[in-house]
Amino acid sequence: MSRIVILAEGSFQFHAAKTAVGVIRYSKDTVVAVIDSTKAGQDVAQALQTNFGIGIPIVRDIREALPYQPDTLLIGIAPRGGNLPAAWRWQLLTAIEAGMNIVSGLHFFLSDDEELRQAAEKHGVMLYDVRRPPEKKVVANYTPHRAGSHTILAVGSDCSTGKMTTMLELEQTARQRGLNSAFVATGQTGIMISGNGLPIDHIICDFLAGMVEEMVLDFCEKYDWVFVEGQGALNHPGYSPVTLGLLHGTLPDAMIFCHIAGATTIDGYQHCPLPSLPEMIRMNEDAVNWLHPHHNSKVVGISLLTHHLSEAEAHAEIQRIEQETGLPTVDVLRFGADPLVDAIQRYFNA
Amino acid sequence: MSRIVILAEGSFQFHAAKTAVGVIRYSKDTVVAVIDSTKAGQDVAQALQTNFGIGIPIVRDIREALPYQPDTLLIGIAPRGGNLPAAWRWQLLTAIEAGMNIVSGLHFFLSDDEELRQAAEKHGVMLYDVRRPPEKKVVANYTPHRAGSHTILAVGSDCSTGKMTTMLELEQTARQRGLNSAFVATGQTGIMISGNGLPIDHIICDFLAGMVEEMVLDFCEKYDWVFVEGQGALNHPGYSPVTLGLLHGTLPDAMIFCHIAGATTIDGYQHCPLPSLPEMIRMNEDAVNWLHPHHNSKVVGISLLTHHLSEAEAHAEIQRIEQETGLPTVDVLRFGADPLVDAIQRYFNA
Repeated sequence: MSRIVILAEGSFQFHAAKTAVGVIRYSKDTVVAVIDSTKAGQDVAQALQTNFGIGIPIVRDIREALPYQPDTLLIGIAPRGGNLPAAWRWQLLTAIEAGMNIVSGLHFFLSDDEELRQAAEKHGVMLYDVRRPPEKKVVANYTPHRAGSHTILAVGSDCSTGKMTTMLELEQTARQRGLNSAFVATGQTGIMISGNGLPIDHIICDFLAGMVEEMVLDFCEKYDWVFVEGQGALNHPGYSPVTLGLLHGTLPDAMIFCHIAGATTIDGYQHCPLPSLPEMIRMNEDAVNWLHPHHNSKVVGISLLTHHLSEAEAHAEIQRIEQETGLPTVDVLRFGADPLVDAIQRYFNA
Repeated sequence: MSRIVILAEGSFQFHAAKTAVGVIRYSKDTVVAVIDSTKAGQDVAQALQTNFGIGIPIVRDIREALPYQPDTLLIGIAPRGGNLPAAWRWQLLTAIEAGMNIVSGLHFFLSDDEELRQAAEKHGVMLYDVRRPPEKKVVANYTPHRAGSHTILAVGSDCSTGKMTTMLELEQTARQRGLNSAFVATGQTGIMISGNGLPIDHIICDFLAGMVEEMVLDFCEKYDWVFVEGQGALNHPGYSPVTLGLLHGTLPDAMIFCHIAGATTIDGYQHCPLPSLPEMIRMNEDAVNWLHPHHNSKVVGISLLTHHLSEAEAHAEIQRIEQETGLPTVDVLRFGADPLVDAIQRYFNA
């Protein structure tokens, strides 16, 4: 268990600091403080206007965080331009000198920075660049998972449709039901939350399915219920290969489809309308079945983001989608993950 | 037009030296000599037992090649282990000192070798590592191709099913018919033959479709008939993401399906049977149509490798597959590419 201070300078808001919020909400480690000088003095719950994070202090800088005895500094936001802002460098160096490991999801790799690298070496701490994939060359082999394990993958209509959150919520609910379950991260925020996983969008194509397969097989050895974070969408013009590599590497036994209520086009691609929900569900099921011998995999439920709708509107939309698709549908953040975990358990008992 | 000497030391045989043979057969540049000390004194046609390459000398080493006035040394084989053999280094240095550019498809990048890099700089020549993709970060945008252009992509049942050769033969036939056509390379041998293209299996997944799209759009501006080399297969457990990224980046108007007569499993995956031909054809057509607005694309013909069959067996198998799929089928190397170019022209006139 680490004691984490999160650097979120100038950006600690619910939607802007997705990583920071995700780590506070889902990490098994303890967040002891958040750094954002613009909100210093508040606590996390006040700053985010949420019902979690009560009592976690927001402080001005790393020096003010030290009394809370953190052992890890986690960079929870992405700076403009991709470079390391000068105003962060001294804070990282201070953290390193205080013996803290640094966890970073930046495009800029800390371990490529000579000053930081030398400081880390001198003080015996780790610089962990979660976006840097392991340099492995492994091609997928279509190896069956351990009998008795169940692998569930989040798929969806687009990027940013709640695939990580959905799998975190499902895994948490499954664990509360006494199931031997694990969350498998495939993006930097998920990796920061869970402490392991692969940044799959940065893997060379030839090895994507292979590296995912190796990771998922490993989880299936240890856990009976393996919830894999999804990425992208098969109908996304840019990211579809990432999604297919994840699908074929994961070989899910079941899938949860993630969608934003009312979305009609790919985000950022106003010229690209979304296929219908039944079409999108079918393409994911078809794509798993391209591999032979057939590995039957079904979408067994829908996770719907409805935060922009009133509660009445959300219920109406959920009902409409259940009728359109014949699948149990819920906003897991708003109404809980139980209906989807029920659907998964029903599917495997059937 | 370059004057090329091909280094194929110890390996100049038809199947072992795929790159060397491809360049001799299809490159618009002139191959002036081949280096293989084990066959020195023969000509290419004798060494390969083919009806092409008559009069192209095979020489002992780079010194013996110099009288033929090459301006480019092309490494046409892959050494065991991936490192640069000591016996090659002096030949590369000699070529560089003689003012020749070096073209390499090795996994080992010549331009990362300090001695070679310095020699190249001193003599003002280029080291061209064709496996090194440009370091670009571009995400596909689903941009329509120029009206009047026709993009044809090779797809297939597996790796190594003749996708490059098929597209080279089709493009050559199209050009002979007076069509304004081009071949677009997506692998290192194709790049060496054509002098441009992208080594798509080495691109980071997020940018695969985007880099392919940019390249194909560029070709579609200049050419009316664009033949894109295929890679992998959608039903391949390891390489499917490469194939999907190529498919979505290329947005082909038509596809040619490539298959080896009699193949029943993925090569190297004896536990993975191939789906039926109609199933495999349909999955490629479906995958293009995942993107919306729909971009209808059909498989319009089948390119069948039959070199392991007698001529009578080949004809029987071609007929059987034509009946099974309803599509014109031919072995383009054995019986010519005309039936497939006919099928393509028919498809676009219909």
